[in-house]
Amino acid sequence: MAPRDQSCGDGGEVDPEGGIEAPLLSSGSSFFQDPAHEDGDGDEEARRRRRRFLLAGRSQSNTTSQVALVGVGVCPIESLDYELIENEVFKQDWRARGRGHILRYVALKWALCFLVGVLSAAAGFVANLGVENVAGAKFVVTSNLMLAGRYGTAFAVFLVSNFALTMLATVLTVYVAPAAAGSGIPEVKAYLNGVDAPDIFSLKTLVVKIVGCIAAVSSSLHVGKAGPLVHTGACIASILGQGGSSKYHLTCKWLRYFKNDRDRRDLVTCGAGAGIAAAFRAPVGGVLFALEAVSSWWRSALLWRAFFTTAMVAVVLRALIDFCKSDKCGLFGKGVLGGVLGSLHNFFLDKVLRLYNFINEKGQKYKLLLAAVVTICTSCCLFGLPWIASCKPCPSDTEEACPSIGRSGATYGRLVGMLIGSQSTLDHGLFAVLGSAALLGGSMRMTVSVCVVILELTNNLLMLPLVMLVLLISKTVADAFNANIYDLLVKLKGFPYLEGHVEPYMRQLSVSDVVTGPLQAFNGIEKVGHIVHVLRTTGHNGFPVVDEPPFSDSPVLFGLVLRAHLLVLLRKKDFIPNCSASALDASKQFLPHDFAKPGSGKHDRIEEIQFSAEELEMFVDLHPFTNTSPYTVVETMSLAKAHVLFREVGLRHLLVLPKSSKRAPVVGILTRHDFMPEHILGLHPFLFKTRWKKVRFGKSAFTNLVF
Amino acid sequence: MAPRDQSCGDGGEVDPEGGIEAPLLSSGSSFFQDPAHEDGDGDEEARRRRRRFLLAGRSQSNTTSQVALVGVGVCPIESLDYELIENEVFKQDWRARGRGHILRYVALKWALCFLVGVLSAAAGFVANLGVENVAGAKFVVTSNLMLAGRYGTAFAVFLVSNFALTMLATVLTVYVAPAAAGSGIPEVKAYLNGVDAPDIFSLKTLVVKIVGCIAAVSSSLHVGKAGPLVHTGACIASILGQGGSSKYHLTCKWLRYFKNDRDRRDLVTCGAGAGIAAAFRAPVGGVLFALEAVSSWWRSALLWRAFFTTAMVAVVLRALIDFCKSDKCGLFGKGVLGGVLGSLHNFFLDKVLRLYNFINEKGQKYKLLLAAVVTICTSCCLFGLPWIASCKPCPSDTEEACPSIGRSGATYGRLVGMLIGSQSTLDHGLFAVLGSAALLGGSMRMTVSVCVVILELTNNLLMLPLVMLVLLISKTVADAFNANIYDLLVKLKGFPYLEGHVEPYMRQLSVSDVVTGPLQAFNGIEKVGHIVHVLRTTGHNGFPVVDEPPFSDSPVLFGLVLRAHLLVLLRKKDFIPNCSASALDASKQFLPHDFAKPGSGKHDRIEEIQFSAEELEMFVDLHPFTNTSPYTVVETMSLAKAHVLFREVGLRHLLVLPKSSKRAPVVGILTRHDFMPEHILGLHPFLFKTRWKKVRFGKSAFTNLVF
Repeated sequence: MAPRDQSCGDGGEVDPEGGIEAPLLSSGSSFFQDPAHEDGDGDEEARRRRRRFLLAGRSQSNTTSQVALVGVGVCPIESLDYELIENEVFKQDWRARGRGHILRYVALKWALCFLVGVLSAAAGFVANLGVENVAGAKFVVTSNLMLAGRYGTAFAVFLVSNFALTMLATVLTVYVAPAAAGSGIPEVKAYLNGVDAPDIFSLKTLVVKIVGCIAAVSSSLHVGKAGPLVHTGACIASILGQGGSSKYHLTCKWLRYFKNDRDRRDLVTCGAGAGIAAAFRAPVGGVLFALEAVSSWWRSALLWRAFFTTAMVAVVLRALIDFCKSDKCGLFGKGVLGGVLGSLHNFFLDKVLRLYNFINEKGQKYKLLLAAVVTICTSCCLFGLPWIASCKPCPSDTEEACPSIGRSGATYGRLVGMLIGSQSTLDHGLFAVLGSAALLGGSMRMTVSVCVVILELTNNLLMLPLVMLVLLISKTVADAFNANIYDLLVKLKGFPYLEGHVEPYMRQLSVSDVVTGPLQAFNGIEKVGHIVHVLRTTGHNGFPVVDEPPFSDSPVLFGLVLRAHLLVLLRKKDFIPNCSASALDASKQFLPHDFAKPGSGKHDRIEEIQFSAEELEMFVDLHPFTNTSPYTVVETMSLAKAHVLFREVGLRHLLVLPKSSKRAPVVGILTRHDFMPEHILGLHPFLFKTRWKKVRFGKSAFTNLVF
Repeated sequence: MAPRDQSCGDGGEVDPEGGIEAPLLSSGSSFFQDPAHEDGDGDEEARRRRRRFLLAGRSQSNTTSQVALVGVGVCPIESLDYELIENEVFKQDWRARGRGHILRYVALKWALCFLVGVLSAAAGFVANLGVENVAGAKFVVTSNLMLAGRYGTAFAVFLVSNFALTMLATVLTVYVAPAAAGSGIPEVKAYLNGVDAPDIFSLKTLVVKIVGCIAAVSSSLHVGKAGPLVHTGACIASILGQGGSSKYHLTCKWLRYFKNDRDRRDLVTCGAGAGIAAAFRAPVGGVLFALEAVSSWWRSALLWRAFFTTAMVAVVLRALIDFCKSDKCGLFGKGVLGGVLGSLHNFFLDKVLRLYNFINEKGQKYKLLLAAVVTICTSCCLFGLPWIASCKPCPSDTEEACPSIGRSGATYGRLVGMLIGSQSTLDHGLFAVLGSAALLGGSMRMTVSVCVVILELTNNLLMLPLVMLVLLISKTVADAFNANIYDLLVKLKGFPYLEGHVEPYMRQLSVSDVVTGPLQAFNGIEKVGHIVHVLRTTGHNGFPVVDEPPFSDSPVLFGLVLRAHLLVLLRKKDFIPNCSASALDASKQFLPHDFAKPGSGKHDRIEEIQFSAEELEMFVDLHPFTNTSPYTVVETMSLAKAHVLFREVGLRHLLVLPKSSKRAPVVGILTRHDFMPEHILGLHPFLFKTRWKKVRFGKSAFTNLVF
């Protein structure tokens, strides 16, 4: 540790150890009765025993992982900053803003939504065009060979082309952009919940996603375009929102108003909706999908902007399809692929993805092997299926339904339909739709958006009551067994997803029961060496700033400073020689733009900045760069109540204050990880055995029903 | 003021005057630069002048009204409590809850949603049945007379029946249930934003609403059933949620789990959706309406429950209509009234309502006069209109469109259609739909839900792009001029509605700039006389509880106690003779059910409790009944940031803490009224002149575009 000037106060570990344990022992009124009210009845001893058990079972650090599976690669993850940072620099910037600035901001917001809509529609069109041309060419060649009676050659062509396409997609995702693998919806969902990961929305990921999607869908793998298009839409939105890609020097200066996570979150939500709108040509369904399945925060103003975006998608798609009607787009729109319903089938996509994840730890060779096995199996099945299907049910059916039977996405419903079909007069098409609705309701657990997407796809409102009934039943049954497919994937991939509801046992714990330490704090005027040391040795992203004597009568919490802002300060090296209030207004040395948040997954690193020995002995005045009004809670607040604040407001750091003003002015910091059930149950193992734990019916998520 | 024992600490006005002014003068860093950073540049003098102006312009009390126009009557309003109250009584209750309790709670939640759906459908069916029978009978009599050539008698019958029906509706609403007047949507919207008013959801209001709706619609007034049915659905939900009507002794004991405002809020949201679903037989549209137009807080779990409710509405309505196909329901379903599209026309309902409100102050006679004038005018217009309409456009039109032309709700679109019709080949029906879409988009500003409702009504998905375009344009144009009709009504009626967005000037003010006083606080152990005095002389609903020496080393904020809980305590009269910690655990004397919140609009009053002189000299221990973890903010936080917390978490009271621990432990309390623009601009009139004020294009609500 660098030598430190103690005259400037000890800004190091505030209350090391005591800051965490003391509140639990001293106040401790949340979990057990307040000592003042303990009236000496019989179960006091039991309570004491449980408390001892509780303390014995507590570990000292947060055990949840700071990495997660993004696509097929393991990446470090960060939280996003949605809080209004109220420091002197930002306040001055806000005061300087006039009416013109607000007008530009509004115009830009709508212009970006327009662009996201147009580009998502274009991306969806390109994906469709690619799939229909590549797969169509394959199909034409194969069926020509089959018509000529050369079944062996046909199978060989089918197998080899599928193999080549799958390998292309796999190699691209494994070696070029691992973040592009999979459906992408869990990543988008995690991002909109406040979890950031490098590369999920980079330009490279975008390109690989589109090319990989075309190759994978064309290779007859049972994957859909919906997930990839959602990711594509979100990518486009994020890249536009951060002002282009700085890595490839494609930046746009006038996008600088969007240098914060709040505005980008809104735009990415619109992008996700645009993806679904482009996949199914279902603009209303796209909005509802964004609302129901991926977003964690929603405002009614956003509804309108998302609707505008998806409306643009619909308009542009229609124009492009009209353009293609004049035979300019190859095989596009020729109907060789059985219809858009097939793309609803991303249930299988997710099954494949899960297998992928289990294989993932075994290295890249295994991934290639897996892909090869999957494609060969699929090829065999697909080539064989039409024979089985067309031989058995055809005689008893309408002729119209037969030709497409081998390729429908909705095979499940059709099979059910076939089983019941002989007894009923309902047609198989209806069963196919209801079956896909049931699958979607059962796997994704989205009710309203699936309902609207199916209505928009089938253009038949008369089946609305049936679709609703099927969705309600399938969701209820599925909820009794496990959580929805995206939530499972989000959990499987290790994203620290903040749930909207509260686990029952969180009402029994106070925030001081889960705060872990030691807490790292800085003085208002802090030594450079100490800041550098703390930044190098910890991974924390926010640090309380405490003013101590002689700068105040008693230790006072001044605010919270972010690692990102400290790095900007240190990079500028505008230090002061000694530990006194700076004569110059340090904030004048910076433009607010210097503190703008770079795009998704981009972070400065302390290791990239070099310091001389002299510089490490100097000081820096943190006051103008400190957020003076962080959100705070008192240490006795229940975890459930703090969770409401943390989740609803969308926080990254929540400061915990002591109940009594006699103690250190801050007890600890809660982050997203402190609200994760695995962290809490790790600290308090006995909760596993109490009745306060989540009531489980099957595998999980009875709470889905409860809250 | 009652004599008080000063040995027990001065629990009265904490920091009278100083508590409000001091923070502004001492820290004052939010609005102006922090004194420590003032580097003596030229505009310091200007800043000082502005500060003096600011202080001179501040009034000492909150000027926003605590009453609002509910229906046609002026009522006192209260805020709802959504916060988790964490006091010892509720904590003990929570600890005592087992798995069975949770299961009952979940089952009850779904059972209530089911009941709300079924009863809303029944109410909608009864309203439709009533209207079609009453208005149908009128129509049949009138047209028979006309066919017999007796035009004079026909007009007289038409006029007199309309007059009688309008008078019936008016007399019922004015004299029996004023809260039932009008569409009811503004009241529901305000309730879901956290504003409670007596009688809005009472059984009386429910009955009058249904009868009045039938009479008003049957009287050929240009009013729709949608608004009243939304109010009806919300009424049903609220009555079920509070366990029946205690006034009429129709209560149900096992509904006691719902004795809080959070659960009722969810249920009322579902009820509002069920109302729209019943009005238009549009289940998806109903869910979206609840989400887009009336609710202020939304969770994706609620989406599913609302969908379940509206699905029940659709199923029950279909069953009832099937039942009526066998001629058991009189004139119902005979199509004499031109179709369900007419009911979309509640735009006019709102116009009428606004006139109502302007007339309102003039007394009840004027109301009756107004109703008489309106019904006579409408009768004349309606009787005359078919001649004008059928004579002019008929020859050039398809015959099919003519007969219904006099009664369509969508006259506006049809007129536009007629004007353009001669040049185009599009049919008038499409224009009628687009016209009503434009009207709805322009007046209600709901995009997605109107879109879906229209799709569900017309059963024609091919017009989706056109409807979307029309909605987007009409909303954009209308937003440039004023806020939406419901927001205007909510404002006109005086509801303190918390907007989702923040006004720009709120970023320039700190919370200490708007806190008004004097603050009333209690000691942990407080004299009964003082509590009674404060409750009688103030209207506050929450009081900080401060522990002072000798009970603590220094004054410490213990928590916040609610007026409703104090009244329960005082009614029980379980007092202690002197100012010391009570030996008995006072909370053992109460059941958690004693503190359950009664239904909407019901409050205890301090005037109803009588005290002897001895009792007034006794003490009461407030500790077990005090919420120990109220949400707090530091006094330097900007109003905008505090607004985010207040709005997102749905608070009633937000405690403001001092920056320095040397001062009184609490500076003030923020309530909903402190965030109202009229209050803030009243305190700081100079904001009217600054560029930070809301940028206005036309009449208002440019911010609708911005946020």
